Amino acid sequence: MIQLPEVIKNAVEALTRLPSVGEKTAFRMVMNMTHWKAAELESVGNAINSLKKLKLCQSCGMFADENLCSICEDGVRSTSHAICIVENASDLMAIEKSGTFSGLYHILGGVLNPLLGVGPDELKLDDLKNKVIKKNITEIILAVNPSVEGDATCAYLKSILPEDVQVERIGFGVPIGGSLEYLDPMTITKALENRKRF
Amino acid sequence: MIQLPEVIKNAVEALTRLPSVGEKTAFRMVMNMTHWKAAELESVGNAINSLKKLKLCQSCGMFADENLCSICEDGVRSTSHAICIVENASDLMAIEKSGTFSGLYHILGGVLNPLLGVGPDELKLDDLKNKVIKKNITEIILAVNPSVEGDATCAYLKSILPEDVQVERIGFGVPIGGSLEYLDPMTITKALENRKRF
Repeated sequence: MIQLPEVIKNAVEALTRLPSVGEKTAFRMVMNMTHWKAAELESVGNAINSLKKLKLCQSCGMFADENLCSICEDGVRSTSHAICIVENASDLMAIEKSGTFSGLYHILGGVLNPLLGVGPDELKLDDLKNKVIKKNITEIILAVNPSVEGDATCAYLKSILPEDVQVERIGFGVPIGGSLEYLDPMTITKALENRKRF
Repeated sequence: MIQLPEVIKNAVEALTRLPSVGEKTAFRMVMNMTHWKAAELESVGNAINSLKKLKLCQSCGMFADENLCSICEDGVRSTSHAICIVENASDLMAIEKSGTFSGLYHILGGVLNPLLGVGPDELKLDDLKNKVIKKNITEIILAVNPSVEGDATCAYLKSILPEDVQVERIGFGVPIGGSLEYLDPMTITKALENRKRF
């Protein structure tokens, strides 16, 4: 087998760290990049490098340009008394895309998972509680994904939050466009439980 | 819609330049990278950056660490009198993988294509001719892919190369594991033309 230069091997190895990029895909990417101009390589390399400068919003934990993210900085939204609690930034963006929620967010950064050593301290749930009290939050929407750990996290949150705060969890059921035929029994059970007068 | 920081937008835009990476895939990659440590981001960014340092073998045009690639530097192979002519580095590596050829290579860097302005000068075919004469090459294998341009390139090469050099083109036919049922008529025609006494 031909011995390839170190720069190629390093680039292939580096790209395999990307999600769903194996050695073959990485190699194909690098072969493509060998035709690029130096300036193009620099701009891509530097763009990845610059991700280390990424800041998180000091209030909600979302990506931010400065200390606060665009939602927490928004004049109208920052005075909202509703907080939507999500697991991560991608979940937040999914909700924002729906355009249905106009309050504040809080990113947990995960869910309680004793086996992985993620407890209330790791998720900084005390800080969340203090924020709820300080900001006079009256409504909390738990947009935590349905799983054993997610359910436990919601139960725990409900137990530590002030009693006068209205805590609700997002609804579970048949997704729009979904077909009962292909859904798992757990979802069907939830859909039946969550039925509404028509 | 939430306004994402510039560093994220830049990284997404940069990754979409990779082959078969669209905006959604690039976004998913960047979301994954937001969990990486600064050192990891640097190592990937720098690996891509370093590709600009990639050198090409002065003799055959393959990727090289120094002036010559590992094949042209090889004590035994460098004295070979056979040259295999390929279109690009990936084709060279495919042939190396088969382990059947032990001579030298020459990378054309493309095929003759008057419509795209690729003529004999662009492919430096005179240099190739001089190399063949200087190195006393006696055998040339044209491993150029079958296409109108590839065929024309082979015909042109044959016409400019010294007459005492044995010029052969790789065989075309049914690939191993292939099934006649799914092959195109052109391949079947070639396979019938190239039949051998059994």
